[in-house]
Amino acid sequence: MARVSEIGEFPLIARLARHVPPYGPDVLEGIGDDVAVLRLGEGRLLLLTCDIQVAGVHFLPEMITPYQLGRKTAAINLSDIGSAGGYPRHFLISLGLPPDTEVEYLEAVYDGVREECAPLGVDVVGGNISSLDTLTIDAFLMGEVREERLLQRRGARPGDLVLVTGALGASRAGLELVLHPQLRSQLPALAVEDSLAAHLTPRARVRQGQTIAEAGGATTMIDVSDGLAADLGHICDASGVGVRINAKVLPVAEATRTVAAAARADPLAWALGGGEDYELCFTADPERVDRLVAAVQEATATPVSVIGEILPGEAGRWLRLADGAEVPLAPSGWDHFRHREA
Amino acid sequence: MARVSEIGEFPLIARLARHVPPYGPDVLEGIGDDVAVLRLGEGRLLLLTCDIQVAGVHFLPEMITPYQLGRKTAAINLSDIGSAGGYPRHFLISLGLPPDTEVEYLEAVYDGVREECAPLGVDVVGGNISSLDTLTIDAFLMGEVREERLLQRRGARPGDLVLVTGALGASRAGLELVLHPQLRSQLPALAVEDSLAAHLTPRARVRQGQTIAEAGGATTMIDVSDGLAADLGHICDASGVGVRINAKVLPVAEATRTVAAAARADPLAWALGGGEDYELCFTADPERVDRLVAAVQEATATPVSVIGEILPGEAGRWLRLADGAEVPLAPSGWDHFRHREA
Repeated sequence: MARVSEIGEFPLIARLARHVPPYGPDVLEGIGDDVAVLRLGEGRLLLLTCDIQVAGVHFLPEMITPYQLGRKTAAINLSDIGSAGGYPRHFLISLGLPPDTEVEYLEAVYDGVREECAPLGVDVVGGNISSLDTLTIDAFLMGEVREERLLQRRGARPGDLVLVTGALGASRAGLELVLHPQLRSQLPALAVEDSLAAHLTPRARVRQGQTIAEAGGATTMIDVSDGLAADLGHICDASGVGVRINAKVLPVAEATRTVAAAARADPLAWALGGGEDYELCFTADPERVDRLVAAVQEATATPVSVIGEILPGEAGRWLRLADGAEVPLAPSGWDHFRHREA
Repeated sequence: MARVSEIGEFPLIARLARHVPPYGPDVLEGIGDDVAVLRLGEGRLLLLTCDIQVAGVHFLPEMITPYQLGRKTAAINLSDIGSAGGYPRHFLISLGLPPDTEVEYLEAVYDGVREECAPLGVDVVGGNISSLDTLTIDAFLMGEVREERLLQRRGARPGDLVLVTGALGASRAGLELVLHPQLRSQLPALAVEDSLAAHLTPRARVRQGQTIAEAGGATTMIDVSDGLAADLGHICDASGVGVRINAKVLPVAEATRTVAAAARADPLAWALGGGEDYELCFTADPERVDRLVAAVQEATATPVSVIGEILPGEAGRWLRLADGAEVPLAPSGWDHFRHREA
């Protein structure tokens, strides 16, 4: 008898996937990806995703307001649809509630969901309410994309460049300030504010994802939820390729560096392994990268950085450090201390 | 400050519904119904529903096998799509798991889901796994229906007849045997088996719902999950009509009567208020009822009973007893003892 704590999330998913009915012809992507992809006919694809937020596991109720929690819950799901190049459309929210939950708390959660959904035209069309010991918000989001626009984890080719929107590590910096509030008084107010916002109310890069998909030239895309190294690993796994990332050009905000310095942490480790940045990481044909970057800039004013290149599968996965040395790119990101000891 | 335990489920939903963005033109039915209904274009409608099963709230893990739990979780959601006349298509399963959950337990849950989904061609395309103190299965099902086939709670007209598939109260009889296992030894084995099956592995009436929608003449439909009286109340609320149900013709299986007798309970109360039968309750034009009943019989061999008629809204909601007396039809069903005292 194996217990779920012993085998881990991905092996568990693989085992359960063997117990579902064989897929019909309309299933383009099933269990194992963040987004299920289904044919609607006439070149239209339906995108389905879900993500759960559990008190004490994904958030600490004393550290995040219900309004922020609603925004974050929505953003996490919107990001999954955006990272496929898709248009989010309809949202269902399933609430598990301790009986003493305040109605005003839930109204504030919904106000946060609305804040993220309304500008994108996403409708909250239903859900479910149940009693549960632990406050739990399980969100289901449906979206749509044209078949020729769909971007997934499969499809990166050796020679493609690796790009990322915005900046990395900021959510991890915010988490540091949530867990160690005493650090805040030593830091510039703006660095504290930016870092906390990145962690508590990340912005889903939906318009950016749509623009990247529609500009042409991109070959894969994923959102940075587990951490850049881990999420790039998903692209490499699905595409059968290797990768080299250049540490020197990874975009890290000044605020993130400031918080890392105060926390005596390595900002590179946060950029590679921190996770929850919800930036888009994508690969693209090198000849079309300039136009792609310009299209995103023009449509959304979001900076895009070239951070590395795709290698053949047998070449492996590497991180080039500032001094030119190359070290293996581990899914956990970058452990400054482990590297120094080695 | 109001707490959710004080205001109840339906008022809570009504309050949260005020905090969602205004609906776009493609939302035919949003928050408040069991099924959200969205326009896909060209007369196609997308149906979305979700239902959560929480250990200790919706099921007792020591009383239901994981295989049965998987079947029941699937059936509850399939029933919601079937009761709209729709075709269930794609299933997502979000698991909240205590770390010591056995992988084999979950595999058996998935086998149960497959048992219900495979014959209907429903694909299990994804989901989510999270740590949670209480074992929780949150299922999200997507389906489709042609716009002209959609059946909802709105649309019942005075003079329509009220019909129900199969038999009522059997799930409540099964619950009695789950809660009081000592009753089982006094009863015929077949009555025990049928009642337990009705409670632990209810069958979703999906083909029946499709047949009713396609035969024409039906005006509303709902599945019996809260209990016949409560679910008919939803139809009356949404349609602005009253109803008279005839107790003498309510279909109650012999096994249910046998268990009720052993439990010294009133089978009529179980039929009206027991819930979780997942039979279909629908209203129809009286001139088309014969053809409708015959169509369901022919396609699925499921019996259909005429149990009452729709009245104008101001006529109220009534239950005609076997002796001809009429009593108000309360959402909680029928309280034999309360009626005797009155």
